[in-house]
Amino acid sequence: MDVLWVVAHPEPRSLTGVLAAEGRAALEEQGHEVAVSDLYAMRWNPVLTRLDYGLDGEERLVVSAAARRAFDAGTLPPEVRAEQDKLRRADALVLQFPLWWFGMPAILKGWVDRVFVDGFAYGVRGPDGRTRRYGDGVLAGKRALVVTTTGGPDPVFGSRGINGHAEELLFPLLHGTLFYAGATVLPPLLVPGADRFTEADGARAVAALRERLTGLRTDAPLPFRPQHGGDYDEHLVLRPHLAPGRTGLAVHTADAPEVRAAG
Amino acid sequence: MDVLWVVAHPEPRSLTGVLAAEGRAALEEQGHEVAVSDLYAMRWNPVLTRLDYGLDGEERLVVSAAARRAFDAGTLPPEVRAEQDKLRRADALVLQFPLWWFGMPAILKGWVDRVFVDGFAYGVRGPDGRTRRYGDGVLAGKRALVVTTTGGPDPVFGSRGINGHAEELLFPLLHGTLFYAGATVLPPLLVPGADRFTEADGARAVAALRERLTGLRTDAPLPFRPQHGGDYDEHLVLRPHLAPGRTGLAVHTADAPEVRAAG
Repeated sequence: MDVLWVVAHPEPRSLTGVLAAEGRAALEEQGHEVAVSDLYAMRWNPVLTRLDYGLDGEERLVVSAAARRAFDAGTLPPEVRAEQDKLRRADALVLQFPLWWFGMPAILKGWVDRVFVDGFAYGVRGPDGRTRRYGDGVLAGKRALVVTTTGGPDPVFGSRGINGHAEELLFPLLHGTLFYAGATVLPPLLVPGADRFTEADGARAVAALRERLTGLRTDAPLPFRPQHGGDYDEHLVLRPHLAPGRTGLAVHTADAPEVRAAG
Repeated sequence: MDVLWVVAHPEPRSLTGVLAAEGRAALEEQGHEVAVSDLYAMRWNPVLTRLDYGLDGEERLVVSAAARRAFDAGTLPPEVRAEQDKLRRADALVLQFPLWWFGMPAILKGWVDRVFVDGFAYGVRGPDGRTRRYGDGVLAGKRALVVTTTGGPDPVFGSRGINGHAEELLFPLLHGTLFYAGATVLPPLLVPGADRFTEADGARAVAALRERLTGLRTDAPLPFRPQHGGDYDEHLVLRPHLAPGRTGLAVHTADAPEVRAAG
């Protein structure tokens, strides 16, 4: 497979940096081709501005419309088009980052903001006239794995831990971005305790990462419900007979947490 | 009150820009003092690097430790210290942004990443030796309101809408950042349909914003459970008699969605 590995950490000698190098080596050992977008090393600019779309100061910027015009005309900045090309080429995508304030570092959020533009990752209609999203889109057929290191221990990210359940904290990325754009999204790999990791912790983390990479092509994905699978009504609200009476992000997985093991 | 208004949008003539100006005017009419951090106008740099902490290229960057040393020594960059000062002075905080990929634009995420450092917004112990967080911290006694414009219509952000419930999508910000740092967090104001807003929509949005700002001091906050209120056990896991048998982000509000009106 062709794998795109996107990593965001300011310190190559961090646990994140070590895992990125180990992960790449593991994939290459398995015979995969790996392209890397190391956002800090690339000095990626995460700030979406009117310059991305060639607008002068006079014209009012409407982000999605301006992005769509520039995307269609092929005039997005070269660094944005390069990332889009990498995404198109990839069979699988790994996003790796330290969890900062329960989300992506700004440099990675701005990779999404600038690369996942209207016409590329949203606002795309299929041959049937329906919008391709939530289970269909530019990333259709591609697998996506999120790998994130956290400062705290495991239980605080569990299903009743004070930080909130990790999969739900990551829902905007896992479901709202990757699944939205069509990817087959794997359960994320959380590496706890990055602030105080010992050599043994590091070895355990590398082993866990290698195992997940071995399953990159075969592991069962998160069973998010596709938009056009019949589970949602015409307002895109989950039909009442599914997860009846329940609310919360977990209703959007076919396999709700109440029937999965707590943890 | 002193209100800090933080806004992130690349186009001053956008709905976000209009609402920011209207909001400020409304607060001033009520006799409040308003400080504004217009991140695009300030050309805020959202990328946390070793330069924030005065590290040379040789020393390994451990973000929290390096930030703590620089915070304690008063050597954080002047623009970071300026934002921390604004936060300390404020009685209330408004964060306003377009919802991009179900989260903050990168420029705002990076305002959090760089300003909410160890020693300021986390890692702070109280006189009793306990860590001040989740209901206590630098933002204690301050009210926080998130105002966000979305491209889509309302139902898709409802409690069973395909995008996920807005309050849960925003949980990393509302709970994991603002409440974590001690703020009293109000229900967010969602302004739908920003991509296609008419004059009437604009007027409705301004009216909704003005109403929420009138209640900035008095509206009931989201009833997040404080860390030290007895609801969590020694592993910071919610005690079994609370929200019994349930999981999901909503268990961290004392008033669970099952007993609230479905939205």
